[in-house]
Amino acid sequence: MINESMYALGAAPSAIRELFAYGLARKAEIGAENVFDFSIGNPSVPAPAIVRETILELIEEDPVTLHGYSPAAGDPRVRQAVADSIRERFGVPAQASQVYMTAGAAAGLAISISAITVPGDEVIVISPYFPEYRTWIEAAGCCIVEVPAQVPSFQIDVDAVAAAIGPKTSAVIVNSPNNPVGAVYTRENLEALAAVLTAKEAELGRELYLISDEPYREITYGKEVPYIPTIYPRTIVCYSYSKSLSLPGERIGYIYVSDLMENAARVSTTVAGAGRALGYVCAPVLLQRVVQKCLYEPSDVAAYAANRELLAGGLAELGYEFVEPDGAFYLWVKALEEDAQAFSDRAKQFELLLVPSNSFGVGGWVRLSYCIARETIEKSMPAFKALKESYEA
Amino acid sequence: MINESMYALGAAPSAIRELFAYGLARKAEIGAENVFDFSIGNPSVPAPAIVRETILELIEEDPVTLHGYSPAAGDPRVRQAVADSIRERFGVPAQASQVYMTAGAAAGLAISISAITVPGDEVIVISPYFPEYRTWIEAAGCCIVEVPAQVPSFQIDVDAVAAAIGPKTSAVIVNSPNNPVGAVYTRENLEALAAVLTAKEAELGRELYLISDEPYREITYGKEVPYIPTIYPRTIVCYSYSKSLSLPGERIGYIYVSDLMENAARVSTTVAGAGRALGYVCAPVLLQRVVQKCLYEPSDVAAYAANRELLAGGLAELGYEFVEPDGAFYLWVKALEEDAQAFSDRAKQFELLLVPSNSFGVGGWVRLSYCIARETIEKSMPAFKALKESYEA
Repeated sequence: MINESMYALGAAPSAIRELFAYGLARKAEIGAENVFDFSIGNPSVPAPAIVRETILELIEEDPVTLHGYSPAAGDPRVRQAVADSIRERFGVPAQASQVYMTAGAAAGLAISISAITVPGDEVIVISPYFPEYRTWIEAAGCCIVEVPAQVPSFQIDVDAVAAAIGPKTSAVIVNSPNNPVGAVYTRENLEALAAVLTAKEAELGRELYLISDEPYREITYGKEVPYIPTIYPRTIVCYSYSKSLSLPGERIGYIYVSDLMENAARVSTTVAGAGRALGYVCAPVLLQRVVQKCLYEPSDVAAYAANRELLAGGLAELGYEFVEPDGAFYLWVKALEEDAQAFSDRAKQFELLLVPSNSFGVGGWVRLSYCIARETIEKSMPAFKALKESYEA
Repeated sequence: MINESMYALGAAPSAIRELFAYGLARKAEIGAENVFDFSIGNPSVPAPAIVRETILELIEEDPVTLHGYSPAAGDPRVRQAVADSIRERFGVPAQASQVYMTAGAAAGLAISISAITVPGDEVIVISPYFPEYRTWIEAAGCCIVEVPAQVPSFQIDVDAVAAAIGPKTSAVIVNSPNNPVGAVYTRENLEALAAVLTAKEAELGRELYLISDEPYREITYGKEVPYIPTIYPRTIVCYSYSKSLSLPGERIGYIYVSDLMENAARVSTTVAGAGRALGYVCAPVLLQRVVQKCLYEPSDVAAYAANRELLAGGLAELGYEFVEPDGAFYLWVKALEEDAQAFSDRAKQFELLLVPSNSFGVGGWVRLSYCIARETIEKSMPAFKALKESYEA
């Protein structure tokens, strides 16, 4: 008489988390330096100094107001500052009332999906996709519809999205820079998607939302990351400071319901209602104040760029095939056999922890997180060599 | 094509929050010292010094691990320390695996309800009750069943609970010390409830959970607050540090699924799954570490005890009727007319902000939060006098 689908979610943690836990145990067994853990996207660059400085400054304030409740949508000063930064950076007329502070992008996505769907609706994702999208879509009583990305560009297959949109479609979730592939959607690609959504809205007489999951916006290697609200008005941005400020455990981010959609205030109100329904009272207040001070802090992507070069270069030399990443900190590598799980299992024998692509909705690949120590990448190359040779023997 | 029930939740914020917002606006208008705001349960006692000291200590650690993800159920060291403290304080064999760190009791309740119900189930609450219970029960697709407390003791009416339990009942939520009434359930009362639940489990062949919402456990004025897992094994405790450590905005607490129920591990797994479904990745990690250091920190209830005496004494002298509170920091006062909303509205004319009882599921009362400045209480007495006289004219 417990909820069996909740039990199933608890009993089968995500493949990423499972491999991460295996890695911790294995490191305890044979020493951390002997395990090449490419499993989890825990930033390896420290939070910038301004985070520590801001905490030290805030901690001198009156604790009653410092740690007290903020309004459900967030501290008004923080919401205003976030709206100002969106306006300044992206040129959209963002108002504070459209910003809702959240406990990270995960909360933002769960809340947004609950806000703009009813049970039985369909939500489209571009595969390969972050596995928890399925969890949150199904938790809202909706069906996930997977539309494969184009190969080998891993841009959105806009014709396939058009074909997948039906009378029950509520939203399309996009994630650029992309986890797990590292693709950044081009302006042209996003404009084509927007055109399809606009046409389908008219055809179906139904609102179609674009949910833009943007934790990696700041982690890019030179390509433009277009701001989607400027391309499609009915966009809901789910942002997180987990990666840009290296604060993943602190759970801080925001939802921005674009002012450019005609029902902006109504959707914003619905987001607040959905947050309330899911048990969110307010985003952690100390961290709200911290990010307010860090809105213009550049992310330190140099370390990730160096890791990317090192890993991609090394694997290329060994003859591995992979997608050249334009953003995020993941390398999407072709498995050396069709069964990605079997490939990941064999890699374990060489102490290489690689996430099989099955959990991202496609077969035949593995994801390598390179937000790790440079030394780990260097030392892993003989293991990758041996893994490859084991398939050639 | 948004979700209309989520819109409704966003559009009609709780009466408490609404009055709180009115108060902020009114204070800006006529000066904070002229508004007597008894609306919200935001602790007025500062967080103990050890909170600040612990943050200052933690902030010197490596930021990569300090702010990194913890496992979904919490930092293993924190879970172990919480389990140890439960074992030491309450004599139950608490294991770390049964502790799940949450973003406050609100998250704990939303998660627990989702874990042990399926849509269509019924959850019993004791009225008057914290209004968000309805929100979370309905968000899980379940029906709320209100069972009035005994009057004037405001203990649980155990016979009425027995009569309300049916084949769809999944859980009873109890909250002691109680918001809004301040009642603390006696051991005898809880034992009678446990006996009814045990008998009904056998009769219906169905698990019946007791969800114990305990944010006010530490805020008591002398009465014993029995630990419910020692009385009824199938208990899920939702705890929060919002009140005991005055950290309401930081969102930190835990769920403890009692080890004493025969399916303890299974329920704990289901709680983890429900947390995942609702978008919780982990409880804020810095605050997890802070509460680990504060587990044996006594709550400063002296200020609340003094406020309680002052407010209760003053209102008694003026001839108001109220429930003598044994815990929490609320006074439940009889409205001077049947319509509590009309009474609250009239009180506003005297700059008194009192929450009408309708939002707690009963008519005819108002709730006064006395976690406020002593001076506000002192200065409010002429207003209470004038309010009373306005009904006698």
